Amino acid sequence: MKLCFATNNTHKLDEVSSLLGVKMGLLSLKDIGCTEELEESTGTISGNSRQKAEYVFKKYKVSCFADDSGLEVEALNGAPGVDSAIYAGPQRSHEDNINLLLKNLAGVINRKARFITIITLVTPGLVKQFKGTVEGEILHAKTGSAGFGYDPVFKPNGFSKTLAQMTMDEKNKISHRARAMTELINFLTSHPI
Amino acid sequence: MKLCFATNNTHKLDEVSSLLGVKMGLLSLKDIGCTEELEESTGTISGNSRQKAEYVFKKYKVSCFADDSGLEVEALNGAPGVDSAIYAGPQRSHEDNINLLLKNLAGVINRKARFITIITLVTPGLVKQFKGTVEGEILHAKTGSAGFGYDPVFKPNGFSKTLAQMTMDEKNKISHRARAMTELINFLTSHPI
Repeated sequence: MKLCFATNNTHKLDEVSSLLGVKMGLLSLKDIGCTEELEESTGTISGNSRQKAEYVFKKYKVSCFADDSGLEVEALNGAPGVDSAIYAGPQRSHEDNINLLLKNLAGVINRKARFITIITLVTPGLVKQFKGTVEGEILHAKTGSAGFGYDPVFKPNGFSKTLAQMTMDEKNKISHRARAMTELINFLTSHPI
Repeated sequence: MKLCFATNNTHKLDEVSSLLGVKMGLLSLKDIGCTEELEESTGTISGNSRQKAEYVFKKYKVSCFADDSGLEVEALNGAPGVDSAIYAGPQRSHEDNINLLLKNLAGVINRKARFITIITLVTPGLVKQFKGTVEGEILHAKTGSAGFGYDPVFKPNGFSKTLAQMTMDEKNKISHRARAMTELINFLTSHPI
């Protein structure tokens, strides 16, 4: 299906997208009454993704997917990796995390990095994982204010701007999470749950 | 389908909703290369909605829906109605429109009003309209900063806050556009195009 919504009003487009999510039956943790912090203690992105999805599925009896993502920097042997969100400490400040990353890469010539997302879908009788990656490099300073996390210092290969300089549409075409999510959505479309 | 996304990160929820829109094949005017202003010259909400959808369908050969909305105030004999977006002039300032509305309602006791949206879907061989309304009242001053248009002065019946004080989720449960859009989505779900 290709269907144009004859508007360029971004408020309206956001409203419709949000409605489509509701129509698809998409629920947030808040919607199912889950207010506790989900544990991420397996030490791997894949493990944490599965840990969160299985916890919600078992406790709340609802089909569920969870994602875990990380930034892997080649010159740092894959760090911050599974610890990306808490790289600079448990307070999870994007600012502090970015500053620590730039400090640890000061003077380093190899800036190669990649974002990875692993989504785990858990439904009755099924546990399935979907992976998305985007290759790029770490800039020397923050650029752009959109997005979140390490987006302002990550320039995807083949683009002249960071993830934080992209519109959501642009980012959704190439980002690690979007790619993993597209795999998930394709699966759900062909395997109704 | 009920499916929980195990996150309360609103950025991630927005990204997924946006992706679902892309997956559904939802395109904006920009996506199809339409940069001109769409004419709204029929004098009615229903007519303008159809005018815009038919224009895009004919010129760009793509299935299309367009919405037109208005605020109908009982004490003003249905004004601003079809002229809601340009009530205070062609510059389409929400601020100016609201100020003129409050001025025209100064000292008026009957504050009854309703928002109406009419969506027209045009596909090969089909022209169909979907309507959504929300009844409420016009407050004496702006309250809230979310949403757009007249949202800050419109309090839906049965709620203690304006549309501009609601989250997108809350607004999507009751708004005129959301109701019309839900009708459209239900139709599309049962009549694949």
